[in-house]
Amino acid sequence: MFDKFEPLAMNTIEIYLESKRRVVNKVLDKYLPLDKTSPLAIHKAMRYSVLNGGKRLRAILALMTGEMLNVPNSKIMPYACSLELVHAYSLVHDDLPAMDNDDFRRGKPTCHKAFGEAMAILAGDALLTYAFQLTADRIQDKKIIPSLISELSKAAGSQGMVGGQALDIRNDFVQKFNSLKVQQLNNLNELHLMKTGAMIIVSARGAAIIGGAHQKELSAVTSYARNFGLAFQIVDDILDVSGSKAILGKTPGKDAKLNKLTYVSLKGIDESKAEAARLMSAARKSLRIFGSKAQRLNELADYILVRNA
Amino acid sequence: MFDKFEPLAMNTIEIYLESKRRVVNKVLDKYLPLDKTSPLAIHKAMRYSVLNGGKRLRAILALMTGEMLNVPNSKIMPYACSLELVHAYSLVHDDLPAMDNDDFRRGKPTCHKAFGEAMAILAGDALLTYAFQLTADRIQDKKIIPSLISELSKAAGSQGMVGGQALDIRNDFVQKFNSLKVQQLNNLNELHLMKTGAMIIVSARGAAIIGGAHQKELSAVTSYARNFGLAFQIVDDILDVSGSKAILGKTPGKDAKLNKLTYVSLKGIDESKAEAARLMSAARKSLRIFGSKAQRLNELADYILVRNA
Repeated sequence: MFDKFEPLAMNTIEIYLESKRRVVNKVLDKYLPLDKTSPLAIHKAMRYSVLNGGKRLRAILALMTGEMLNVPNSKIMPYACSLELVHAYSLVHDDLPAMDNDDFRRGKPTCHKAFGEAMAILAGDALLTYAFQLTADRIQDKKIIPSLISELSKAAGSQGMVGGQALDIRNDFVQKFNSLKVQQLNNLNELHLMKTGAMIIVSARGAAIIGGAHQKELSAVTSYARNFGLAFQIVDDILDVSGSKAILGKTPGKDAKLNKLTYVSLKGIDESKAEAARLMSAARKSLRIFGSKAQRLNELADYILVRNA
Repeated sequence: MFDKFEPLAMNTIEIYLESKRRVVNKVLDKYLPLDKTSPLAIHKAMRYSVLNGGKRLRAILALMTGEMLNVPNSKIMPYACSLELVHAYSLVHDDLPAMDNDDFRRGKPTCHKAFGEAMAILAGDALLTYAFQLTADRIQDKKIIPSLISELSKAAGSQGMVGGQALDIRNDFVQKFNSLKVQQLNNLNELHLMKTGAMIIVSARGAAIIGGAHQKELSAVTSYARNFGLAFQIVDDILDVSGSKAILGKTPGKDAKLNKLTYVSLKGIDESKAEAARLMSAARKSLRIFGSKAQRLNELADYILVRNA
């Protein structure tokens, strides 16, 4: 996306991400209740909504953070899958007619289009519930489960992701205090830190907790994920303006049509790109204490900057 | 409701229940995020949906089970409140236009009527999420938290409460296999065991786990709650036919209007009353191993049989 990064056919990080994605998909498939298990309809709707070709960014971020701390993927995996269940549920509810009213996601009918609105509400509820069950049942080290559940619920709840969505649907929010750009930008940052940032932060933090990270490491990982999450969102805003439908799998230009305040609408494309690069650079700096072990996460930060979908 | 029980103005068990209800309400009020905490709207909607004069049956069942096992209320309370948050979220989502489409609950506008549909979806999501946070953060004995979360999520999820709701919205379910009454009754029992039974069972079981109950005690408590839950549902069906709107706080006759299969529609009022009494008797028998310590829970079983709202 940015001029200084050459698009590659399939570079190392892409191969790495694709292989992780496959493993995560396989484990999600294994963990989710079979659609032959009663009640069939809700299990079908749950599987449909999760096993749909998502990027698995949150799960992979957790696995990568674990790798940096020498933790095998298998120890992180149940928690990584919990993150993806929370993410999947949030998309199912976000797509509902009362919310964003989206008919398609990744080129397929959204859950409520395929299974009806009532079933989509329930499937989302069940996925959120199952996220907590998975971590409670499958994380081997029982004594860290309370803090994993606590962090995950805070990140997903009314002062995290769901709170961000609540701010987002009140479309007056970002502009209500005053019309100063600096205030609008602060509001927008607050919204994004809640809506997407909190779950990205807890993806890395949870893995660090499983890895027994000490306070300094936990802070470093948190700072990486916080900067990463904001940059990720800015890139998302840019793609909504400049991306192509074929590659995105969704219609670009939606933010502008909804008259949504975005980084791009506030600062323009060039300044937004510069800000994303600045944040990713700060993310990489946060990981200096891990030395060469941080290489993959650094590559991921660079890769997100040049992503085109 | 039943002839053999004399209605009393305010008997011992009613005074007891009312005092527990007050304590639970006070603690819920304390635990819930203030409506002065950002984001205001979702916290207002969450408080509105929880602090609305509910019976607090699930929380009180947990407290009473704890008392039977000599556990102070304070040790059970965070978990008891988690149960009420799950119950409250399920009502918020149940009332949505895509589900039961109810405008009033306990004489007040339902959450989506007061705050809009999108906010009601999010408030329900946030309450469910907060239920897990509360237990993870506030139960003192950290080592039982994984099993509390595991049991609660199973009871609330796709093979428990939400699964029961998924069966319920597919109104062909109870009649689809064949038209034999015995099969319909089995389906109805399965539905109720999931939709309301699972949460009632886990109310008692969770408290028993906190109380360090051994396997035999846990089985006894589970058997009590299972029978109690089914009887509770039958009484509910009877009240829908014979209750008065003023006392119920909702319009009776709704099941019949929706052509829903109920115990009453299958077996008639008299046989339904007899079945409820039989189940409550089985519930009481389950607690024999606790001797006189089971007195309160036995009184509760009798009281549910004569409840009129």
